[in-house]
Amino acid sequence: MVFKIQSTDKKSKARTGTIQTDHGEIKTPIFMPVGTAGTVKSIHQRELESDINAQIILGNTYHLYLRPGLDVLSQAGGIHKFNGWNRPILTDSGGYQVYSLSGTRKIKEEGVTFASHIDGSKHTFTPENVMDIQRTIGADIIMAFDECTPYPCEYKYARKSMEMTHRWLKRCCDRFDSTEPKYGYGQTLFPIVQGSCFKDLRLASAEKIASFNREGNAIGGLSVGEPAEIMYEMTEIVCSVLPWEKPRYLMGVGTPANLLESIALGIDMFDCVMPTRNARNGMIFTTEGIINIKNEKWKSDFSEIDPGLPSFLKNYYSKAYLRHLVASKEILGAQIATLQNLTFYLWLMNEARTKIEEGTFSEWKDLTVKKIMTRL
Amino acid sequence: MVFKIQSTDKKSKARTGTIQTDHGEIKTPIFMPVGTAGTVKSIHQRELESDINAQIILGNTYHLYLRPGLDVLSQAGGIHKFNGWNRPILTDSGGYQVYSLSGTRKIKEEGVTFASHIDGSKHTFTPENVMDIQRTIGADIIMAFDECTPYPCEYKYARKSMEMTHRWLKRCCDRFDSTEPKYGYGQTLFPIVQGSCFKDLRLASAEKIASFNREGNAIGGLSVGEPAEIMYEMTEIVCSVLPWEKPRYLMGVGTPANLLESIALGIDMFDCVMPTRNARNGMIFTTEGIINIKNEKWKSDFSEIDPGLPSFLKNYYSKAYLRHLVASKEILGAQIATLQNLTFYLWLMNEARTKIEEGTFSEWKDLTVKKIMTRL
Repeated sequence: MVFKIQSTDKKSKARTGTIQTDHGEIKTPIFMPVGTAGTVKSIHQRELESDINAQIILGNTYHLYLRPGLDVLSQAGGIHKFNGWNRPILTDSGGYQVYSLSGTRKIKEEGVTFASHIDGSKHTFTPENVMDIQRTIGADIIMAFDECTPYPCEYKYARKSMEMTHRWLKRCCDRFDSTEPKYGYGQTLFPIVQGSCFKDLRLASAEKIASFNREGNAIGGLSVGEPAEIMYEMTEIVCSVLPWEKPRYLMGVGTPANLLESIALGIDMFDCVMPTRNARNGMIFTTEGIINIKNEKWKSDFSEIDPGLPSFLKNYYSKAYLRHLVASKEILGAQIATLQNLTFYLWLMNEARTKIEEGTFSEWKDLTVKKIMTRL
Repeated sequence: MVFKIQSTDKKSKARTGTIQTDHGEIKTPIFMPVGTAGTVKSIHQRELESDINAQIILGNTYHLYLRPGLDVLSQAGGIHKFNGWNRPILTDSGGYQVYSLSGTRKIKEEGVTFASHIDGSKHTFTPENVMDIQRTIGADIIMAFDECTPYPCEYKYARKSMEMTHRWLKRCCDRFDSTEPKYGYGQTLFPIVQGSCFKDLRLASAEKIASFNREGNAIGGLSVGEPAEIMYEMTEIVCSVLPWEKPRYLMGVGTPANLLESIALGIDMFDCVMPTRNARNGMIFTTEGIINIKNEKWKSDFSEIDPGLPSFLKNYYSKAYLRHLVASKEILGAQIATLQNLTFYLWLMNEARTKIEEGTFSEWKDLTVKKIMTRL
């Protein structure tokens, strides 16, 4: 993996760049649509490629490990061959799902024991086997196994957890560096900064993580319920320590405004379920603002869903039709809403890159944040 | 509406033709994908046009009347403007849904009173208001309000019901002929033959229906649980009476084999939820046979879903991936399965037309029915 910074903004820490992987190039800043079980829910791979123009998607180790399982993924020749997505893929480490989805889990120094949400069967994730699992899944970028602390979190717990995450990182790196990719293309490992919302812990964690000198770095444990200001503060502190010349990935973030503000702090990569999950519930992001399509006011609004966005949707569908579909719980409602939201998110990243290159990012950001976060 | 017969098969009653509507031409024999609430479940209009090559789709009066409702459809300028489908549309009369979906309904000479499955509100359908409703929905082909008898059905009930359907047809025609289309394009009304599985009733009904001299005729009350042989027998009897020079529509039918056998009896139009509904449950129709994709045997089968069908699906997806999606209840599973099934059904109709034109339909049918109904 090669990261090259192309241009930088003078009034902020924003930058554009490219990440070269064996499955192609990623232009940063970038948003990665979440494809939990090897599918971005309700979106065809063809649409991801040609309509949404996604450059990289995310998969969840926890879900893929349980279903279809490592035997199938291995026989397929890895996740790209399995799901037909030939551009880059990133997998998380499974840690977040284990904590948030699994009813009964035990976190110990060795690793985490948890019960499958599908059949209740018991499994253990350790830093070592999570590396092995991600080798078998075969994403281009894989994540270290960490503990994601909740918000709010006691200082003492946050510190102890962070220290364990650091020890786990050492074990992840040892395992990763002593194993080979399985399918003939390269994989790279990103470590994750933790430390909850405590400045000193975030600083200490960022320094520790940077010292591992991996090809890219991630920030975890944010966007878990804390106020946006605290998230930005922590992100800023961490970005001041993480090496400038390597990509920075802010995990699980966020709203369109969160993305633009975090780009200004020096973040290059994002993922979040918001554009996909909220789409299925009728929350539509547009270039003109946010629409709750279930609202009565859209019932007879036959205008196109987003006049500002080039998309095939405008050739077929109106707000009123989308409202009807979502109100009727029709699958096509989820399809259209998700396609709109992801097209918007990727368009926003493209706009941000252009503005950074043109040297007008900061002014554009302030105007745009206001507009796109307006409730219509 | 203009129907022209293009070619006929020498060894059967099969024929090819064209139906000209104000929304374009339909080549017959044709299968009409079911778009209950103004959407073919899990399929984009773009896919219907360009991938599936659907020439006409069906909508359900009962569902569209309840949601989005006539005010929205009227303000939109009719169903085509509302759902973005600019090719022909056919609506059923709502009768079938009222009988099968509605818990509490009362059938009287005047009409049917029923409770909405959405909110329990009370409504009445009469032959007259069902014509008005279908004028407002605005489909190109609309259906007479009839009673669809269950199977099995007592002779006495079947006869009385059939006679009421005939009286209702008179009322439908009177109302239809004394009203105008609302959106500047033509609409045509098809009456429906009933008579359950009784030869004399079917003959009598077909004669009565033919006497109304409408532009096309339909056969209802079949494919409701009776053996296929009886369905074919009834279809054959009715086709011997219904005028040769007008399109014949066999409602709610059926399996790929049912379609080919009924084409041989002189049927031109079909609709059925089978390719769409069963897709969502993992039943996949292919040129090689029928697949239950949930079956363990497909778990590591990385071959394409249907090697015999030209489709964009083959560029992305395997049987194993589709199995994973359906097993995981992922929306994309429904999307792929439905797209495959409808592409197959429309391909099959296209093949049938070609074989009829080439004069090889009957031989081809016998071989094909065997192949495509094989359980893989």
